[in-house]
Amino acid sequence: MTVIYIISFFAVVLAVLFAVYLYLWVKKQPECTERVEGIAKLVQAGANTFMTKEYSVLAKFAAVTAAVILILLPVPIWKGHISENIIMMVAYLSGTILSALAGKIGILVSTIANTRTAEGSRTSLTSAFLIGFRGGAVMGLAVVATSLFGVAGVLLLTGNTTALLGFSFGASSLALFAKAGGGIFTKTADISADLTGKVELGIPEDDPRNPAVIADNVGDNVGDVAGMGADLFDSNVASMAAALVMAASLDQAAGGKINTIMVFFYAAVGLLASIIGIAAARIGKKGNPTSALNSSTYFTTGIFLVLTALGTFAFRGFSWRIWGAAAMGLLVGVLIGIVTDYFTDDRHMIVRNVAKASRSGPAFTILSGVSYGFISSLPAMVGIAVSALVAYKICAPMGDGYAMFGIAMAAVGMLSIVGMIISNDAYGPIVDNARGLVEMGGLGDAALETTDELDSAGNTVKAVTKGFAIGAAGLTVISLLGAYMSEVNSAAVEHGKALLTGFDIMDPTVFFGVLVGAAIPAVFSAMLMLGVDKNAQRMVAEIRRQFREIKGLKEGVEGVQPEYDKCIHIATVGALKELIPAGLMAILSTLAVGFIGGVSAIGGFLLGNIVTGLLLALFMSNAGGLWDNSKKYIEAGAEGGKGSDAHKAAVVGDTVGDPFKDTAGPSLNTQITVVSLVASLMATLFLTFSIF
Amino acid sequence: MTVIYIISFFAVVLAVLFAVYLYLWVKKQPECTERVEGIAKLVQAGANTFMTKEYSVLAKFAAVTAAVILILLPVPIWKGHISENIIMMVAYLSGTILSALAGKIGILVSTIANTRTAEGSRTSLTSAFLIGFRGGAVMGLAVVATSLFGVAGVLLLTGNTTALLGFSFGASSLALFAKAGGGIFTKTADISADLTGKVELGIPEDDPRNPAVIADNVGDNVGDVAGMGADLFDSNVASMAAALVMAASLDQAAGGKINTIMVFFYAAVGLLASIIGIAAARIGKKGNPTSALNSSTYFTTGIFLVLTALGTFAFRGFSWRIWGAAAMGLLVGVLIGIVTDYFTDDRHMIVRNVAKASRSGPAFTILSGVSYGFISSLPAMVGIAVSALVAYKICAPMGDGYAMFGIAMAAVGMLSIVGMIISNDAYGPIVDNARGLVEMGGLGDAALETTDELDSAGNTVKAVTKGFAIGAAGLTVISLLGAYMSEVNSAAVEHGKALLTGFDIMDPTVFFGVLVGAAIPAVFSAMLMLGVDKNAQRMVAEIRRQFREIKGLKEGVEGVQPEYDKCIHIATVGALKELIPAGLMAILSTLAVGFIGGVSAIGGFLLGNIVTGLLLALFMSNAGGLWDNSKKYIEAGAEGGKGSDAHKAAVVGDTVGDPFKDTAGPSLNTQITVVSLVASLMATLFLTFSIF
Repeated sequence: MTVIYIISFFAVVLAVLFAVYLYLWVKKQPECTERVEGIAKLVQAGANTFMTKEYSVLAKFAAVTAAVILILLPVPIWKGHISENIIMMVAYLSGTILSALAGKIGILVSTIANTRTAEGSRTSLTSAFLIGFRGGAVMGLAVVATSLFGVAGVLLLTGNTTALLGFSFGASSLALFAKAGGGIFTKTADISADLTGKVELGIPEDDPRNPAVIADNVGDNVGDVAGMGADLFDSNVASMAAALVMAASLDQAAGGKINTIMVFFYAAVGLLASIIGIAAARIGKKGNPTSALNSSTYFTTGIFLVLTALGTFAFRGFSWRIWGAAAMGLLVGVLIGIVTDYFTDDRHMIVRNVAKASRSGPAFTILSGVSYGFISSLPAMVGIAVSALVAYKICAPMGDGYAMFGIAMAAVGMLSIVGMIISNDAYGPIVDNARGLVEMGGLGDAALETTDELDSAGNTVKAVTKGFAIGAAGLTVISLLGAYMSEVNSAAVEHGKALLTGFDIMDPTVFFGVLVGAAIPAVFSAMLMLGVDKNAQRMVAEIRRQFREIKGLKEGVEGVQPEYDKCIHIATVGALKELIPAGLMAILSTLAVGFIGGVSAIGGFLLGNIVTGLLLALFMSNAGGLWDNSKKYIEAGAEGGKGSDAHKAAVVGDTVGDPFKDTAGPSLNTQITVVSLVASLMATLFLTFSIF
Repeated sequence: MTVIYIISFFAVVLAVLFAVYLYLWVKKQPECTERVEGIAKLVQAGANTFMTKEYSVLAKFAAVTAAVILILLPVPIWKGHISENIIMMVAYLSGTILSALAGKIGILVSTIANTRTAEGSRTSLTSAFLIGFRGGAVMGLAVVATSLFGVAGVLLLTGNTTALLGFSFGASSLALFAKAGGGIFTKTADISADLTGKVELGIPEDDPRNPAVIADNVGDNVGDVAGMGADLFDSNVASMAAALVMAASLDQAAGGKINTIMVFFYAAVGLLASIIGIAAARIGKKGNPTSALNSSTYFTTGIFLVLTALGTFAFRGFSWRIWGAAAMGLLVGVLIGIVTDYFTDDRHMIVRNVAKASRSGPAFTILSGVSYGFISSLPAMVGIAVSALVAYKICAPMGDGYAMFGIAMAAVGMLSIVGMIISNDAYGPIVDNARGLVEMGGLGDAALETTDELDSAGNTVKAVTKGFAIGAAGLTVISLLGAYMSEVNSAAVEHGKALLTGFDIMDPTVFFGVLVGAAIPAVFSAMLMLGVDKNAQRMVAEIRRQFREIKGLKEGVEGVQPEYDKCIHIATVGALKELIPAGLMAILSTLAVGFIGGVSAIGGFLLGNIVTGLLLALFMSNAGGLWDNSKKYIEAGAEGGKGSDAHKAAVVGDTVGDPFKDTAGPSLNTQITVVSLVASLMATLFLTFSIF
C-alpha cells in the first residue's frame, strides 16, 4: 500500500509546482497604469503592516500556549515523559506556522493578482476572469498542499495521533484569531467607508477621496483572503485529524494500516481533482463568470467521485461503504451550496422579497432578512443531520467504531474538493480589489462594467462556499466528538476509571454542559460584532474629521489626498485589541466547564456549542449574503433604484449584514473546531482534576 | 393530609373572591370623560371582535385535535378502551376552555381598568397606579386560580396523570395560537402606527388622527393581556403537570400520596403568597411605580419561602430537600429578573451604549442591540443550567426518580409566585392604554406626565417578568423531558420493548433529532415575524391612503375622523391568517421526526428545541427590551433627543425589537412546551410506529 503514500506525495508536489506555475503566470501578466500600481502598493503595504503586527501578537499567544502544552499536555510533566510533551508542543507550533504560511501566501498573490486583473479588465472579461481565478487558485492549492503535507509529516514522524490533534489545534487557534482579527479589520473599514462615503456624501464606492478606501481594500486581503485561507486550512486539517485518530484505533484493532491509508487516499485524490478542475476552468466567450465558477466545482466533484470509485475498485481492502459515506458528505456540501444560492441570489424570490420590504423602511429590511436567515438554517441543519445519520448507518455494519469513522469520512469527503472551493472563494476579494483599483485609477466605464460583473459573481459564489465551509465544520466537529470520547476512554483505562459509553441528555451534568455550551457561540459572535461596531464608530469619526478639516477633499480638488494611513491605523489597532478576548473567552469557558463539571459536562458542552454554533453561523452568513444582494438588486434598478428610500434601507441591511457574514458567521466554524480540539486535548486533565 | 387539599381549595376560593372584589373595586372607580369612554368603547369592541373571531378559528382547531385524540390517544381505539380516550379528549378540551376563559377575563377587566386609570391620573399618581395594578391583579388571580382548579379537578376526577398531560396540552396549544395571533395583531398595529405617525408625519404617539391608533390599543389588550395570560396559564399548568406525573410514580413506588400532596402544597402557598403580596401593594407618596412593583415581587417571594419552610417543618414527610429545590428555582427566577433589568433598563450601561451607537446610524443600533441581546442570554442560560443541576443533586439522595422530581419542583417553585408576576405584567398594557386614552381624550399635560411615568415602569417590569416566564418554561421543559422518558418506558413495558436508559448524544438518531429540533425555534420565530412584517406593510399602505384621501385628517380639522375599523380589520384578518401555520409547523415537525426517527430521535429533538428555544427567546426578549428603552432614553433628551438622527435610528431599533419581544420571543416559551407535551402524548405511537 505504499503506493498510496506515493500518490499523496505526488499530489502535494504536483500541487506545489502547479501553484508556482500559476503564481508566475499571474505575475507575468501586464501591469496596470502607474497610478493603479501606486495605489496597489499602498494596499500591499497596509496589508503587510497589519499582518506583521497581527502575527507578532499571535506569536506571543502561541508562545504562551506552547509553554502550557509543554508543561501539561498530553500528560503533566511530573507524571509522564517530557519527550511526549515536546512532541506535542512542536506539533502545535508547526500547526500555527503552516497556518500562518498559508495566509501569507494568499496575501502575496492576491496583492499582485488584483492589479493584473484590473489591467486585464481593460482588454476582456475572459482574461480578467482568468487572472482573478488563477490568483485565487494559488491560494487554494497552497492551503491544501500544506495541510496534507503537515498532517502526513506529523503522522509519519511521530506515529502519534494525539500529536495530530495538537497540530490541528495549532492550526485552529491561529485560524480563530486570524479570522477574528481580519474579520474585524475588513468590516470596520468596509462599513465606515460605505456609511460616510455612499450614504452621507453620496460619492461612489471606492472613490479615492474617501479616507477609508485603502483600508477597505486592505481589509479584503487580510480578512477575506488570509482569514478565509486560515479557516479552511483549519477545517481541512481538523477533518483529516479526526478521521486519522479513529482510523488509527481501528487499524490497531484489525491489524494493518488500511483505514489510515484510505484517509490519505481520499485527501490526495481530492487534491488531484482540484488541480484538474482548476486547470480546466475557463470562461466561454459568452459565458458568465458565476456559471464558470460553479461548473468547475461540479466538474471537480465529478472527478473526485469517479477517481475514488476507481480506487475503491482497484485497491484491496477499500470499502464501498466508506466511499458511500464520503460521497454522502460531498453531496450534502453541494446541496447546502444550492440552498444558500436560493436564499442569497437575486434570481430567486427571497432577495427580491427583502428588497420589496425595504420600501417600508430599514426596520422591515432587518426583520425580513433576520426571518429568512433563520429559515435558511433549516435545510442545512437537516442536511448535516441526515448525512451524519446516513454515513453512520452505512458504515455501522463494518464493525465496532466504523460507524463514527463513517461520519469522519463524510467530513473528509465534503472537504476533499476544498482546493477548488478556496480558489473560488479567494477569487472574490481579488476581483473586488480589482474593481476598487479600476475606480480609483479612473480606468473607464468599460473596465468598471467588467469588474462589476466579475465582482458580482464573486459575491454569489462566496455565499455558496461559506455554506460549504460551515457544513464541513459541522461534520468535522461531530467526528471530533467521537475523537473526544475515545481520548477520554483511553485516559480512563490508564487511570483505572469507568469507561464512558456516551453522554446521556438526562444526566444533569451533561445537560448543564449543553446549556452553557449553547450560549458560547452567541456571546462569541456578539463580542466580535461589538468589536466591529466600536471600531467603526471610531473610524467614522475620523473620516468625518478629514472631510471637515482637509480643504478641497470633498470637492475632489486635484492633488488633495486624504490621510489613508490614519484609517489603516485605526482598523489595525482596533482589530488587534479585539481579536484576543473573544477567542480566549471560548477557550476559557471550555476549561471552566471541564474543570467544574468533568468529562460528561464537556460532552454536553461540545454538543450545545456545535448546535447553536452551526445555527448561528448559517443564519448570519445567509442573512448577510441576502442583505448584500438585496442592496445590489436595488442598485441595479429595482424598487426605485439607487438613491431611493428603499435603497437607503437596503444599505442599512447591508451594513448590519457585513459583520454578520464576514466577521461573526465564518469565525463560528473555527470557534466550534477550536473548542472541540481543546476538549480532546484536555480530556485526561478533565478526567482527573474536575470538581464534580 | 387532607388538610393540604383543604388549603388548596381554600386558596382557590380566596383567590376568586379577592379577584371579584378587586374587579368590583376597579369598576366602581370614577369613569372618565364622555370622549374617553367613547374611545374606550371602540377599543373594547375591537378587542371583542378579534377575540371572538380568533376563538372561533381556535375552536375549529381544537375540535379537529379533539377528534384525533379520541381516535389515537393515549392508545388507538382499536387497541385500547375508548373510555380512556374520551377522558383524554375531555381533559384536552377543558385545558383549552380554561385557557380561553383566563384570556377572556383579562380582556374584560383591562378594558374597564384603562379608562379608570386614565381618570385616576387626573387626580394623583398613587390612585392611578392602584387602579392599574389592581386591574392587572384580577387577571393574575384568575389565571392562577383557574390553573390550580383545573389541574386539581382533572387529577381528582380521573386519577390519571396522562390525562393531566392532555389537559396541559390543551392549555398550551391554545396558548401557542393565542400568543401568536395576539402577538401578530398587536405588533402589526404598533409598528404601523409608529412608522406612519411618529416617523413620517411627526405626530405624537396615540394621536387620534392616526387611523391605526385604536387598533394599537386593541393590540395591547389582545396581545399583551390575553396572550400573556394564556402563556403563563400554560407554563403554570405544565410545571404542575410535569411535577405531578413524576410525583404519582414516586408515590406509587413508595406507597401513600406525599409527593403529590407536596406539589399541591407549594402551588397553593404560592397562590396565597401572591394574594397577600397583591393586597399589600401600595405606592408611597414619593415612591416610584417601578420600585413599588418590584418590592411587591420580593415581598411575595419572601412570604412564599417562609410559608413553605413552615409547612416543611410542620407536616410529616415533607422534605427539606424538596424545599431547597423549589427555593433554588425561585431564586434563579429572581436572578434572571435582575439580569434582564441590567440589560434593559436605562439606569445601566447597556441601554445607554446602544443609544450612543445610534448616533452613527440605525445599522449600529441594530448591531449593538443584537450583540448585547446575544450576551444577555448567557447568565440566564447558566442560571437555568445551574439551578437544574443543583436541584437534581439536592434531591438525588432521596432515592431513584427524586432527582428529576427535584428539577420539576424547581420549576414549580419558580412559578409559585406567578399570580404576582402576572399582576405586574398585566399592569403594563393597562397603563399603556390609559396613556393612549389620556392623549386621545386631551386630558392635559399633568395627566399625560403621570401616565407616562406609570407606562415606563410597566415597560421595565415587563422585561423582568418576561425573563421570568422564559426561565420557568426552561425548567418546566427539562422536567417534561423526564416526563417524556417515563411515558416512553411505561409504553415500552406494555409492548415488551427494551427500556430507555437515556438519550445518548453519540447515538446518531439522537444527534439527528438534536440538529433538526434546534432549527425549529428559529423557523418558528421567523414565520411569526414575517407574519408581522407582511401584515404591517399592508396596514402602512392603508394608513398612507387615509392620510392622502381623507381631507383635513392630517391637519386635524374638527370632526374629521380616520376610518379606525379598516385598520382593525387588516390586523384581525392578517393575524388569523398567520397564527395557524407557525404553530402547526412546530407540531408537525415533531410528528415527522417521531415517526421517522422514533423515540430516541424525539429525545434529541426535544433537547435541541429547548436549547435554541431558550437561547432565541432570551435574545429576542432582551434585545427588544433594550431597543425600546434606548429609544425612550433618547426621547427623554439624551444623545440629541427627539427628532435627532440618533432618535430616528433608535426608532428603527425599536421597530425591529417590537416583534422580537412581543411576538416571536414570548411565543417561543409556549412553542417548546407544546412540542414537549406532544412528544409525551405521542410516546406510545412513536415507539410502535416509527420507521427507524
